[in-house]
Amino acid sequence: MTMWQDIRIQSLFGIELPILQAPMAGASTLEMCIAVSEAGGLGALPCAMQTPDQVRRALGSIAAATRKPINLNFFCHTPPVPDEEREENWKKRLTPYYIEHGLHPIGTTPSSARAPFDDTYCRLVEEFRPGVVSFHFGLPQKDLMTRVKATGAKIIASATTVAEARVLETRGCDAIIAQGFEAGGHRGNFIGDNMAGQVGTFALVPQIADAVRVPVIASGGIADARGIVAAFALGAAAVQIGTAYLFCPEAKLTPFHRQALRTANADDTMITNVFTGRPARGIVNRLMRDVGPLSEHAPAFPLAGGALMPLRQKTEPANISDFSSMWAGQASRLGREMPAGDLTRTLAAEALAKLSTETGTEVRDSEAPVQAGTQ
Amino acid sequence: MTMWQDIRIQSLFGIELPILQAPMAGASTLEMCIAVSEAGGLGALPCAMQTPDQVRRALGSIAAATRKPINLNFFCHTPPVPDEEREENWKKRLTPYYIEHGLHPIGTTPSSARAPFDDTYCRLVEEFRPGVVSFHFGLPQKDLMTRVKATGAKIIASATTVAEARVLETRGCDAIIAQGFEAGGHRGNFIGDNMAGQVGTFALVPQIADAVRVPVIASGGIADARGIVAAFALGAAAVQIGTAYLFCPEAKLTPFHRQALRTANADDTMITNVFTGRPARGIVNRLMRDVGPLSEHAPAFPLAGGALMPLRQKTEPANISDFSSMWAGQASRLGREMPAGDLTRTLAAEALAKLSTETGTEVRDSEAPVQAGTQ
Repeated sequence: MTMWQDIRIQSLFGIELPILQAPMAGASTLEMCIAVSEAGGLGALPCAMQTPDQVRRALGSIAAATRKPINLNFFCHTPPVPDEEREENWKKRLTPYYIEHGLHPIGTTPSSARAPFDDTYCRLVEEFRPGVVSFHFGLPQKDLMTRVKATGAKIIASATTVAEARVLETRGCDAIIAQGFEAGGHRGNFIGDNMAGQVGTFALVPQIADAVRVPVIASGGIADARGIVAAFALGAAAVQIGTAYLFCPEAKLTPFHRQALRTANADDTMITNVFTGRPARGIVNRLMRDVGPLSEHAPAFPLAGGALMPLRQKTEPANISDFSSMWAGQASRLGREMPAGDLTRTLAAEALAKLSTETGTEVRDSEAPVQAGTQ
Repeated sequence: MTMWQDIRIQSLFGIELPILQAPMAGASTLEMCIAVSEAGGLGALPCAMQTPDQVRRALGSIAAATRKPINLNFFCHTPPVPDEEREENWKKRLTPYYIEHGLHPIGTTPSSARAPFDDTYCRLVEEFRPGVVSFHFGLPQKDLMTRVKATGAKIIASATTVAEARVLETRGCDAIIAQGFEAGGHRGNFIGDNMAGQVGTFALVPQIADAVRVPVIASGGIADARGIVAAFALGAAAVQIGTAYLFCPEAKLTPFHRQALRTANADDTMITNVFTGRPARGIVNRLMRDVGPLSEHAPAFPLAGGALMPLRQKTEPANISDFSSMWAGQASRLGREMPAGDLTRTLAAEALAKLSTETGTEVRDSEAPVQAGTQ
């Protein structure tokens, strides 16, 4: 029986398979979280776009459905300083679209609710004691870190550079997610924001593994058994998979997002800040083409999203994708439509099969394939 | 004895090890080419910056030193249409640097000599019959392709997207280099030039492997045994390694380039067009910071480099890196200083050792590591 050679993450989190479902705010559901954890992976519940009451209800449902560990995920961005001029200019930039869709461009901009981890969320962690707490965009203040640690939760967070990985380790993370350039959704960068320096998964994973002592979880471009085996070869002890789970029936997606995922090539996704103000990878659409993909005019995270809300409310029901983010990584073409639990088990089984048959097989000299080279 | 499981590239090229030294115009040398081929890999001689006479002399030296196959490499760019206004504006943009260094900004711009593959080069291929001919920036016209094929040379070329890989296969390539975003030096893109859509090695290799029938050579971010094993897991049949060979004594580098390679982090390299007019990955320096990394004002390839030549002639002898390209990929930190032949053998031996011990070992149930999960 072939087994995983590196079981540091399984041991740390108390899970069976080294597969983490990426928390995808807006798209992943508690049903997905339950299914992945029940299958032996680590399901995740993203909290940044939910009120504490919504999180509480979701955690209650999860607790009733599974006793397996889950990952509660929070954002750690610094709340933006309001900048009226910038926001007005942003609305002006979007005004032609308002007019096109018969919307009134004057009026209060709705606020895009993405709250950073705080005392209220921390109380929920203390009450429900999830096995793993993950942070994106850095880590919370020291007192909050101490309180989360005290619950017994393992803490993980995303690094997009070696320097970020070192900070996360120093500040007490139990494992580090190496988030490569290929990853869909928001970049986790928290030191610097120059997207021209972002690092591919292939180069990032071994360099972070060399720089820290805690185990590394590879993410970005991993969607099948080949990716899992490759991530382990590069030094990862587990993988975090996002986009591949968007193909599951448990994912909550607009019909146009689901359709775009099925046909997007790797080069059809780009890193853009036009939807939220922070860089994130998604499938190119009209707004990204017209205004981005990276715009210096987008208000700070998460404010850029506010002015888009009336446009989305008008266009999404008509299945128009012009103003809506369609987060996806560069390996969406490798996705397969199956339930999240089946996907988790299938990925693990295929990776183990690949480990046992395709690499590292001892070949006796008499059976060695003919070498073409002339010595 | 552990052997390579996939020997398609070794069989195709008649080499022993699935390791190709990347042709690096200006930095790789005929000594490096000879050393890599003699060690069992595939050494490369880049021809784009050499006159046919220089190539002829180099090929004579190589033929005298090794009977192993080598890779002759050519550029296939469309020669630029002169655009006086653009070139004047580019010179104006650089004028402050000219003044800073006491140079006269008026005068003829030297031409940056990078010639595309043509009849003259093709005659050299017909005369010297290298085992492999590689092309960058697409492929030459059909008649030239036919002539190269007729010599018996295997033809390979770089693809940065799945669409480019399909074109290369259709047009007769015997293998395809999947050039990931992490790779140092010039991007090989030849369909479109939007750098925001470039694809990481981790996502690119399996998707190209799925799309074509010919073997895939992975490149970009591969610098040690972990990368080689991971590339094979993703579906590659060989790797092309560039930056790691820059640490060899056979590489021809400015002292500041060699020094920068030793300390550059992965996020210290960016894709820039300011040195030649085409996007290429290098270590960030003053010109990239000031003018780029990507500038819409840079004249078409290779013209952008001409106006930089007086600046480089003045500053390079003073060990000033401000105006000189320092090509490097995102895995330069994994480089080791050793002769090119030793590096080739060491990489292969370490990759095979990793294949036999770190993955895929059969573990009997009685020896299975304890699983942490609770079923």
